[in-house]
Amino acid sequence: MSKLFFRYGAMNSGKSTAMLQVAHNYEERAQNVVLVKSATDTKGKDQIVSRLGVSRQADLLLSPGQDLRASFHDLCQQRALDARTIGCVLIDEAQFLTPEQVDQALEIAVLDSIPVVAFGIRTDFRTRAFPGSQRLMEVAHSLQEMKTICRCGSKAIFNARVGKQGIIREGEQVMIDGDSAQYEALCARCYLVPDRT
Amino acid sequence: MSKLFFRYGAMNSGKSTAMLQVAHNYEERAQNVVLVKSATDTKGKDQIVSRLGVSRQADLLLSPGQDLRASFHDLCQQRALDARTIGCVLIDEAQFLTPEQVDQALEIAVLDSIPVVAFGIRTDFRTRAFPGSQRLMEVAHSLQEMKTICRCGSKAIFNARVGKQGIIREGEQVMIDGDSAQYEALCARCYLVPDRT
Amino acid sequence: MSKLFFRYGAMNSGKSTAMLQVAHNYEERAQNVVLVKSATDTKGKDQIVSRLGVSRQADLLLSPGQDLRASFHDLCQQRALDARTIGCVLIDEAQFLTPEQVDQALEIAVLDSIPVVAFGIRTDFRTRAFPGSQRLMEVAHSLQEMKTICRCGSKAIFNARVGKQGIIREGEQVMIDGDSAQYEALCARCYLVPDRT
Amino acid sequence: MSKLFFRYGAMNSGKSTAMLQVAHNYEERAQNVVLVKSATDTKGKDQIVSRLGVSRQADLLLSPGQDLRASFHDLCQQRALDARTIGCVLIDEAQFLTPEQVDQALEIAVLDSIPVVAFGIRTDFRTRAFPGSQRLMEVAHSLQEMKTICRCGSKAIFNARVGKQGIIREGEQVMIDGDSAQYEALCARCYLVPDRT
Repeated sequence: MSKLFFRYGAMNSGKSTAMLQVAHNYEERAQNVVLVKSATDTKGKDQIVSRLGVSRQADLLLSPGQDLRASFHDLCQQRALDARTIGCVLIDEAQFLTPEQVDQALEIAVLDSIPVVAFGIRTDFRTRAFPGSQRLMEVAHSLQEMKTICRCGSKAIFNARVGKQGIIREGEQVMIDGDSAQYEALCARCYLVPDRT
Repeated sequence: MSKLFFRYGAMNSGKSTAMLQVAHNYEERAQNVVLVKSATDTKGKDQIVSRLGVSRQADLLLSPGQDLRASFHDLCQQRALDARTIGCVLIDEAQFLTPEQVDQALEIAVLDSIPVVAFGIRTDFRTRAFPGSQRLMEVAHSLQEMKTICRCGSKAIFNARVGKQGIIREGEQVMIDGDSAQYEALCARCYLVPDRT
Repeated sequence: MSKLFFRYGAMNSGKSTAMLQVAHNYEERAQNVVLVKSATDTKGKDQIVSRLGVSRQADLLLSPGQDLRASFHDLCQQRALDARTIGCVLIDEAQFLTPEQVDQALEIAVLDSIPVVAFGIRTDFRTRAFPGSQRLMEVAHSLQEMKTICRCGSKAIFNARVGKQGIIREGEQVMIDGDSAQYEALCARCYLVPDRT
Repeated sequence: MSKLFFRYGAMNSGKSTAMLQVAHNYEERAQNVVLVKSATDTKGKDQIVSRLGVSRQADLLLSPGQDLRASFHDLCQQRALDARTIGCVLIDEAQFLTPEQVDQALEIAVLDSIPVVAFGIRTDFRTRAFPGSQRLMEVAHSLQEMKTICRCGSKAIFNARVGKQGIIREGEQVMIDGDSAQYEALCARCYLVPDRT
């Protein structure tokens, strides 16, 4: 049995960089990795993009209805790879996975004995979990925080949606576009106390 | 700003012992603590009971509709304690808190600057989060795992409801009675693969 | 391969309580544990004593020259236990182990595949590692902090020796007697800045 | 009071990448950082080099006899920066710091209230701590592991020096040259059991 890891952090905590580093560490030891990205995140298309300037193509672009475990095994077959030689499955933007896909990730770890590391945001702009993050927090073997800072220097834990009038507290959960400036990672105090933001 | 901690673990991971130890550590340094217990957990009544044989009365028995932050401040007033002198608020069986009460716990940490440590189970017998645990996993500053073992020796992460025919996978979320033997902490593999349990 | 864990914390962080809880968790699942205590710590004799009021006899009282791994296997033989059925080896006051004994603990984990959890203090009153803690910090698979608080409410990380004139900064590393009041767990600031202590 | 963090990991665990990411995270929030590198590590000269392909010049190249805290404040003065506006001090190859320099790093965190994050290797090829890592493990507020894998897929915790006849177990602690292939991160079992390596 291998483990399912959820490495969560607010926006801009370096999740994609960390994921590309893990891939690099495995490959340096001559072990294959499979990089998965949720197709819900249309930003960067099929690229996993780190703000440090490194990027790389995903092996699998996962749509909401798709079976993650079946797709993983199909991919191995297409590439003539024995699944047992895969060192690790890495998932970017894992908050957008469906709960079923998280269960399939758990099965890859537990039944196929391949470690799965999912990177994602914990909550949306209303501090509510995304479906994928909620399921990951329920079933992952290990929850590992990735840190970043708030404008005030404290640890940021929330992802605020910011408009002209300040923090927006109602609306659609997912709103992806080119302008990432409308989201801001904040600490709990800067999020909760209006006049501080 | 202080922090809200969620120390989660499967059944029988020693959560109540750890909570009583934290209380002891603060009091040894002459700092007051307030012990909260969810009234939903009728087992042990108003006692926080450790399987190691230590027990202690809760200061606050919290019903679902009750405001945690207001009740905490009322209690301080009744006992003529300045809330600012409270070293820590400790919550037992925190999975039974309502989401609103978790938000109030966050406010005690962030707005009143008193550390809050909530101890609880992550998921029910169907591996779904309890309302309190879900909210805690969304907003706590720090998620800390408390470990225990499965019958097979691996780390237990799930809480199975076990009947005469094996693992029960459907039913009411909460079922508290005197017979704790009907729940069993299991690892993911012993939970997922029927013939192993 | 199992792991060697070092759970370190300042004085009075609840290390013995945590150790007795781990023992309880294994035994509840019908797995044997072996409790080791350094004979250098003459306090409590062969008892592992928790400040919460729980105590229990050690299975093995380890003197500095003694081989931990050989003694462990001898004990199993004496008790007619197959070493492979031991769920866990637990070590109290592990800072007093010799470096060789820590290496033997690592061998129990790695070569005999039995998890070893060592509990101990990180540093002495001059903030220098004990021989056992130093070796544990070098080779343990996992370093896990156990927290307690300073008189000021911050996390304590140092163990000060306190005399009538305040903090004592020179002297013998080990000085065990009945009067534990002469040691105090402090945060770095209360330790470093004289007029604050 | 801020904290001193020691993020340790075996060779090739992504420490420099993580350090450059932390720097990026602070600067994105318009906070200054100061990057320190031990001059003992002559590889890459004054550059902090990540194996992912990112690199950056260190602000301070620290020689063994140099006072870290004084040098840090001198640098701030030279650059007309108020030290209080520095968000974070980051140290690469921190295992090469002298114990005194680690104490100075602690003072920057505790007395100047600037978080210090030191990245480094825990032990040398004989599994003995470097002077800097030993002191960091004694006094850091938080010890955080960075993971990488062994050739066998397990977590690597040791840094073996490998020659034509296999693992070398005696020699000089520091031997830096261009040929990094002579070191290999290994798990405890592959390090301890000769015929496995």
